[in-house]
Amino acid sequence: MSTSAFSERQTIEQVEEGVELSPKFDEHGLIPVVTSDFSSGEVLMHAYMNAEALTQTIKLGEAVYWSRSRECLWHKGATSGLVQRLHEIRIDDDQDCIWLRVDVQGGASCHVGYRSCFYRAIPFGDQADEPLGFTETQKVFDPQEVYGDAPNPTKL
Amino acid sequence: MSTSAFSERQTIEQVEEGVELSPKFDEHGLIPVVTSDFSSGEVLMHAYMNAEALTQTIKLGEAVYWSRSRECLWHKGATSGLVQRLHEIRIDDDQDCIWLRVDVQGGASCHVGYRSCFYRAIPFGDQADEPLGFTETQKVFDPQEVYGDAPNPTKL
Repeated sequence: MSTSAFSERQTIEQVEEGVELSPKFDEHGLIPVVTSDFSSGEVLMHAYMNAEALTQTIKLGEAVYWSRSRECLWHKGATSGLVQRLHEIRIDDDQDCIWLRVDVQGGASCHVGYRSCFYRAIPFGDQADEPLGFTETQKVFDPQEVYGDAPNPTKL
Repeated sequence: MSTSAFSERQTIEQVEEGVELSPKFDEHGLIPVVTSDFSSGEVLMHAYMNAEALTQTIKLGEAVYWSRSRECLWHKGATSGLVQRLHEIRIDDDQDCIWLRVDVQGGASCHVGYRSCFYRAIPFGDQADEPLGFTETQKVFDPQEVYGDAPNPTKL
């Protein structure tokens, strides 16, 4: 496969059972990306790539996303130093989602300061009326120190 | 938290650091969902829920998605028997993504017949010109036997 261009999506068999990379980008030109810790399997974050971000990720061996809030390429760790080094990149059956398995230099991936963005559990079943429960109690870094006054990416 | 209604999103602090469930659904009324195997940590699939699917998932303790291709609620396993039982549901920092940690009754989650939808790796770095590599070589079930002539959900 060439990293400068992806294959055209021609048949379902090619997309599902083939060995050509032919990712499907949505109406905004984006593909969702799940990033997990290679050692622990913990899901660290969920983000998006455009074609250029995917191409750069493949070339560089480090996660490069498309920031929807800042509308620019986002080489993860450029500000915080918490670069995500790739162990493996996978693509799903219909090639509309990417899974990155990474090592995080510094141990955190969440702008709030936690290891994973998924630091709260939703009670379910008999417990469904309970509040969210924190699964991490200690932040790995202080966001104020790392990001200073940069705008918070969370949108209401 | 009540499963019949979610909290309103009022401040970034409430959304990021609070214990109220206030999920953000996109312009189509959907929230992306990452589903991984509780024991192995393997990411099995990436799908979407609307508010009703999330409410049912929380109540039932089994994964209920919104099928974008069939435009209906999709209780995973209703056709194949491969139900996903919840061990944990997590939500991310800005509450616009869900992570399900599940046990799959029967061991497979992919309509193509593999254990995970992510059965192919994308070579990167020095290997970037290589074809996709299969990470699973044997299908867990025969999709033709399970789904018969049901339309394939993959879109070109």
